[in-house]
Amino acid sequence: MSPLAKAIALTEQLFEELRAHTTDEPGITRAAYGEGEEFAHAVVRRVGRELGLNEAVDAAGNLYLTLEGEDPTLPSWIIGSHIDSVPHGGNYDGAAGVFAGLALVHALRTEGRRLTRNLTIMVIRAEESTWFPVSYLGSRAAFGLLPADALETRRADTGLTLREHMAALGLNPDAVARGETYLDPASIHGFVEVHIEQGPVLEREDAPIGLVTGIAGSFRYRKGRVLGQYGHSGAVPRAYRQDAVIGFADLVAALETTWDGLERDGERATITFGEVGTDPTQHAFSKVPGEVGFCLDVRSESPMVLERIHAELFAHAAIIEQRRGVRFDFGEQSGSTPAVLDAGQRAGLKAAAACEGIRAIEMPSGAGHDTATFAGRGVPASLIFVRNQNGSHNPFEAMRIEDFACAVRTLLSFLKV
Amino acid sequence: MSPLAKAIALTEQLFEELRAHTTDEPGITRAAYGEGEEFAHAVVRRVGRELGLNEAVDAAGNLYLTLEGEDPTLPSWIIGSHIDSVPHGGNYDGAAGVFAGLALVHALRTEGRRLTRNLTIMVIRAEESTWFPVSYLGSRAAFGLLPADALETRRADTGLTLREHMAALGLNPDAVARGETYLDPASIHGFVEVHIEQGPVLEREDAPIGLVTGIAGSFRYRKGRVLGQYGHSGAVPRAYRQDAVIGFADLVAALETTWDGLERDGERATITFGEVGTDPTQHAFSKVPGEVGFCLDVRSESPMVLERIHAELFAHAAIIEQRRGVRFDFGEQSGSTPAVLDAGQRAGLKAAAACEGIRAIEMPSGAGHDTATFAGRGVPASLIFVRNQNGSHNPFEAMRIEDFACAVRTLLSFLKV
Repeated sequence: MSPLAKAIALTEQLFEELRAHTTDEPGITRAAYGEGEEFAHAVVRRVGRELGLNEAVDAAGNLYLTLEGEDPTLPSWIIGSHIDSVPHGGNYDGAAGVFAGLALVHALRTEGRRLTRNLTIMVIRAEESTWFPVSYLGSRAAFGLLPADALETRRADTGLTLREHMAALGLNPDAVARGETYLDPASIHGFVEVHIEQGPVLEREDAPIGLVTGIAGSFRYRKGRVLGQYGHSGAVPRAYRQDAVIGFADLVAALETTWDGLERDGERATITFGEVGTDPTQHAFSKVPGEVGFCLDVRSESPMVLERIHAELFAHAAIIEQRRGVRFDFGEQSGSTPAVLDAGQRAGLKAAAACEGIRAIEMPSGAGHDTATFAGRGVPASLIFVRNQNGSHNPFEAMRIEDFACAVRTLLSFLKV
Repeated sequence: MSPLAKAIALTEQLFEELRAHTTDEPGITRAAYGEGEEFAHAVVRRVGRELGLNEAVDAAGNLYLTLEGEDPTLPSWIIGSHIDSVPHGGNYDGAAGVFAGLALVHALRTEGRRLTRNLTIMVIRAEESTWFPVSYLGSRAAFGLLPADALETRRADTGLTLREHMAALGLNPDAVARGETYLDPASIHGFVEVHIEQGPVLEREDAPIGLVTGIAGSFRYRKGRVLGQYGHSGAVPRAYRQDAVIGFADLVAALETTWDGLERDGERATITFGEVGTDPTQHAFSKVPGEVGFCLDVRSESPMVLERIHAELFAHAAIIEQRRGVRFDFGEQSGSTPAVLDAGQRAGLKAAAACEGIRAIEMPSGAGHDTATFAGRGVPASLIFVRNQNGSHNPFEAMRIEDFACAVRTLLSFLKV
């Protein structure tokens, strides 16, 4: 068995261990700063010790396991990803990137080989913003970039603040709030994240891995509302209705026309109303609905496209308000900036894949990833997608271990150069 | 103070007593076969005793208070309505009709006057089908018309069956299930229900009361679902999406075009999606939504119009399924048949109102009422609407006591003839 095959066999066991302990039917749940994420950190820490890696934790709880290189004074490689998941998600989203780092180090150890530079596996906290309404929470904290008010946001399930959750784990929220930095861009040679693709592109293109050109930015309204007026469903004639569900359906249809226009112009974006609901304390099948809540998530690699959609959103809303007698309250906006990834690294990874006989296609990422934080700090950064079946953020997420091995093999070949 | 004024003063007190004891902010709640309805029954029973009325209760818990007429062997008048409410509804929906009966009898007692026939105040159970998914539950049970399986339906809040709720109140669900009749159409001279209008028509027409020509029937899907496929909101390109929210919005828009067509043809109907929601155990702002649940309530006085909407609904759904890669599961259908009300009685009520100098307009009822059950059994039946502000089935429901008095005055004048 080759060193790489041994390393892959280890990670298969680790995936199973993780699944067994964080199953939450349907799917798995690893809440940010919660039980599931903690369990995953403990597993990684244990393997790090077995591999003899140096261990460090920053104020926000990001974990760093370092394999020393021939010259530890050189800027280092960081290979990392997150290890939390969405509620009832799949086992590979995030974890694959951390385990890719462990597999790399395991293979290097078995070979008895050192790299020139230090290689740090970074286990990033809280990437899934379904828990706290903050993008790239862990990686931004590592650079001292997390706004202080993020500490006061509340976890969707527990209602406790990020500060409270950090304190409960013995971390240092005050240092995070002060913007203390743990990572210095100047001391990082490059960052690489391995992550399952979260869409069907690699599967349709029949490629085991993808090399990402850029990461979409986003704008989001997580607490949008359409406000109308409740009334009796049989007794209020059409002309007098202020039906919030009709107003919502109009907004969905209007953004579909916006999306049609973008496609005609060759622009890429995604527009998603992931959650919608009338108010269970007020609605009834026999009432004209007076209120609908919704989440809107808009993503694009292009800041111009995001702006265009944003402007059209408000124009549509104003027309619908007039027409339907409803009012839109979009609530607080959140989002992230698009990131361009390092062309030189990508060329190197492409060459390494070719050398290994692995088909790797270039593609954008519609989903956000911590890689964007590193790119934003000027660190040369890359993101390698692994083909997956059935998408991610759902219980049916799948990944073939052979495809995962292609990513590790490519990266190993690239790092050895 | 006139006998009528005294009677109205009494009912004002009763309305306040009811409100004080069944408030459930926002609004009031009187669950069918629940605490609020029981309290209301106790109040009516107490007043009935004070007025010396004969008291009877049928197997389903409908309450009958009878003022004996000069010839008790003649078929009797029944004046009745329900006294339950929707959750967080208003104080007058239903209760106004019961209290109108009490006000009538109070005025007749004060005048020392007897009617030729018996006059029975009927307090009907469980008219609001938000509790049990059954139309006209109490009135149908009184005629032995409630299907046996209705006893096994569950109350939306408690999850207990109708049978269990009846048994808990010492009623006789077995007799209801067997279809035992308490009311015989042949022994009823006529039925009159006073009820607040549940829309804005009387307010806009500046009339205190309305005389209803017919009651809308309905078809309903209370457990409709759009089934798509969950996916990552950023990573699944548009062409691969099976977005349940988009499918839902398309259905809403399609039924709007159906409604446009009906209006062009001069047909009356209402189409309402009163409840909608993605699945809280599965949805996330960062997921393409894979499932949406909804309630659909369609009403019209015309069976032909109901059929037309029903046919178009399925045609729309088939097109949307093709276009969006989603599937509709409408679930079980419920509904009721439209009812035509008695033209002779209405003419008499109109004459009585004119004689009293009260403006009464003729109008249809989009909402269902127990009157429909009596009309369906061939009992000459009437429904008198009282002007109300802010609609019904909501906490802001309002009714002026002067308008209520107009209904009582008209009815008293009519019954004395």
